[in-house]
Amino acid sequence: MSDVLIERDGAFTTITMNRPRRRNALSRAFLEDLTRAFAKVAETDARGVILAAEGPVFSAGHDFADLAGASHADVRDLLQTCADLMRTIQSVPQVVIARVHALATAAGCQLVATCDLAVAAESAAFAAPGGRGGWFCHTPMVPVARNVGRKRAMELALTGDRIDARTAAGWGLINYAVPDADLDKAVHDLLTRATQGSPRSKALGKQAMYAQLDRPEQDAYTYAIEVMAAASQTPEAQEGMTAFLEKRHPDWPA
Amino acid sequence: MSDVLIERDGAFTTITMNRPRRRNALSRAFLEDLTRAFAKVAETDARGVILAAEGPVFSAGHDFADLAGASHADVRDLLQTCADLMRTIQSVPQVVIARVHALATAAGCQLVATCDLAVAAESAAFAAPGGRGGWFCHTPMVPVARNVGRKRAMELALTGDRIDARTAAGWGLINYAVPDADLDKAVHDLLTRATQGSPRSKALGKQAMYAQLDRPEQDAYTYAIEVMAAASQTPEAQEGMTAFLEKRHPDWPA
Amino acid sequence: MSDVLIERDGAFTTITMNRPRRRNALSRAFLEDLTRAFAKVAETDARGVILAAEGPVFSAGHDFADLAGASHADVRDLLQTCADLMRTIQSVPQVVIARVHALATAAGCQLVATCDLAVAAESAAFAAPGGRGGWFCHTPMVPVARNVGRKRAMELALTGDRIDARTAAGWGLINYAVPDADLDKAVHDLLTRATQGSPRSKALGKQAMYAQLDRPEQDAYTYAIEVMAAASQTPEAQEGMTAFLEKRHPDWPA
Repeated sequence: MSDVLIERDGAFTTITMNRPRRRNALSRAFLEDLTRAFAKVAETDARGVILAAEGPVFSAGHDFADLAGASHADVRDLLQTCADLMRTIQSVPQVVIARVHALATAAGCQLVATCDLAVAAESAAFAAPGGRGGWFCHTPMVPVARNVGRKRAMELALTGDRIDARTAAGWGLINYAVPDADLDKAVHDLLTRATQGSPRSKALGKQAMYAQLDRPEQDAYTYAIEVMAAASQTPEAQEGMTAFLEKRHPDWPA
Repeated sequence: MSDVLIERDGAFTTITMNRPRRRNALSRAFLEDLTRAFAKVAETDARGVILAAEGPVFSAGHDFADLAGASHADVRDLLQTCADLMRTIQSVPQVVIARVHALATAAGCQLVATCDLAVAAESAAFAAPGGRGGWFCHTPMVPVARNVGRKRAMELALTGDRIDARTAAGWGLINYAVPDADLDKAVHDLLTRATQGSPRSKALGKQAMYAQLDRPEQDAYTYAIEVMAAASQTPEAQEGMTAFLEKRHPDWPA
Repeated sequence: MSDVLIERDGAFTTITMNRPRRRNALSRAFLEDLTRAFAKVAETDARGVILAAEGPVFSAGHDFADLAGASHADVRDLLQTCADLMRTIQSVPQVVIARVHALATAAGCQLVATCDLAVAAESAAFAAPGGRGGWFCHTPMVPVARNVGRKRAMELALTGDRIDARTAAGWGLINYAVPDADLDKAVHDLLTRATQGSPRSKALGKQAMYAQLDRPEQDAYTYAIEVMAAASQTPEAQEGMTAFLEKRHPDWPA
C-alpha cells in the first residue's frame, strides 16, 4: 500500500494519510507525497477534497526519527517543505476539509488548522506538544493562532496539553465536533454544502479569501474589489445572476 | 416615500432602508443615498445612529437587476461605491448600531459586519450566498471575516448557508440576539450604554479603533499613544479627570 | 511595604501590585517599578511569573491624580512608559499569568490582555471605562482588541461597561474564570502546565509567538521557519527528540 491513498467518489476525492504505524508522522518524503497528491487532485474536476487518515492517530506531526541530529539546513528545508504543503492546500481550487478521527498534534494540528474546513469526531483531540518538550511548535502555531484567540493560542502552545474536539469547535479551530459514528456523514454534509454552485467561482473565492484575510481592512477592500469586479464578467457570474432574475436553476459552466 | 428614511428621536437618529419590495437591494443609487444619509447625520449632534430596515428582509445585498450584463468598469465602480458606504459608517463620529430584524445576506451581511455594534432579532439570519452561486461574496467577506474566526468565515463564504442570530452572536458577528419582541428595547439599551460620556471623545475613540485594529501590535501602540496623548489635552478629557477627582458628575463640552 | 512585591516560591515568582489604597493605579513611578520587577525576574531561573494584586481592585488603570493638568509631552511619555511595561511582559523569558481576583479597568484591563495567560475569580470584572468618560481607552484597546472579536471590542470600548469573568472567558480575554476560592489553585495549575519542558525553548517560543501573530500568514511562516530551524540545533531540541526516540524522560539543560 502507498503511504498516501487517493480515492475519488463522486464529486469528492479523499486523500488519506496511510502511515498508521508511524502515526502518520510527516517525514520529508511523506510531505512531498501529500503535496503531490493535492497538486494531482487540483487538476481534476473533483469539487472537494477530504483529508483523512488511517490508524490510531490523525497525524503526530514531524518525524523525530528524521530530525534528531539533522543539520540546520536540513531542518530548514523540511519546514519549508511542510509550509509548501500548507500553501498548496490553501491554493488548490477545491474546498479542502479535514476529517479528524483521532489525535492531531504539532504539524498534524497545523494541517487541521490549514484546511478550509474541519470536522472532528468527539474522541479526537488536538495539541501543540512542542511547548512542553525541547522544540517549540513555532510553525504549527502560525495557522493555529489564526483560527483561535490569542490567549487560547498561548495556552495551546505553552502547555502542550490536549484539547478535546468540543473545545476545539468552541475555540474555532474546527467547524464541528460530532459523535464518532457520525463523522463521515458530517464531513460529507458540510463538504456538500460547501461545494454547491460554480466550481470556478468557488475556487477563486477560496483563494482570494486567504489573500485578503491578513491585510488591513482598507487594503483588503482594494484587493477584493478588483477580484470581485473581474469575477463579475465570468460566464458563471452572469449565469448566476441571469438565472436568479429569471427564477430558474443556474447551469454552471464546467 | 423616499428609499432612505432619516428620523431623529432624542439623541439618536434612525436611518431606515426603505425599499422593501426590492428586499432593500443595494443599487448604486441606494448606496449613494445611504452614504449621503450617514454624511448628513454626521454633521448633526445626534449621538448614535440606528441602521434599520423595512420589510421582510434586512438587505439582500447587491441588486442583480443592476449587475447582469454590467461592464467590468461599472461593477468595479459599484463595489467601490459600496466600500465607500462601509468606510463612511466607520468614519462618522456617531456610534452606529445595526438593528437586524430579518435576513441579511451578501452586502447586507457586510453592512451588519461593518456597523460598530449589531443586535438582531432571534428570527433574523445571516448569509454570504455568493459562495453557492456564480459570483463569490469577495467584498462582503472583508468585514465578515474580521468579526468571526477563520474556519467560520470559510464556512459562511463557501456554503452560502444561513446562520441564525444565536449562532451569529456566538461567533461574534453581532453583539446580541434577542427575542423579536425585545429588539427595539435591546438596540436602544445597547446604544444608550454605548453613547454615554463625551461625544467628541467617543467619536475619536471609534475612529481610532478602526485605525489601530489591523496594525501589528507595536505599530498600533505607536499610533494609539499619539492619539491618546493628544486627546488628554482636550477639555473633555480634563473635565472627565477633574470630575472624577472631585467626585462630581462631569459636564461634557457640546 | 514597597508598592511592588516580588516573592519567589519554588519555580514561580509572584509580582504583586501593592498600592491597594490607590486601587493599584498605574502612576509613572509604579509603572517603572513594575517594569523593573519584570526585568529583574527575567534574569532569574524562575520558570513562571504570576502578576497579582492586593486590595479590592486588581488595577484601576492610569492615575488621574497624575494626569489632570499634565502636559501633552508628559502624558505621551507616561503612555510610552506604560507600553514599555506591556512590551517587557511579552519579552521576558518566563510565562506570565495574570491572577485577577477583582476588577481590572482601563490600563489594568490592558495588563490582563497583555499577559500570556490569565485566570480570574468569578467575582472579578473587566472594563475599558474611558469610553464613557472624556478620555477614550485608546491604548488599553490595543491588546484587548487582539484578544476578543471586533464587535465585542467595540462594545467594551464604547460602553465602558463591566463584563464579568465568565463573559471574559467566553470572549477569550482570559483563559478561565473560576470560583473565587479556587483562584490560586487554578493559576498554579495552569502555570505549572504552561512551564513544563525546556525553559529556553519555551522562552523563545513565547517571544516568537508575539513576533509572528500580527504578520500576514506567509510572512509569519518565513519568520517562524527560521526560528524553528535554528531552534532545532539547540541542545534542548536534540535532547527532546532523542529522549522521545529512546522512550525516556528528557533531561533539560539549565
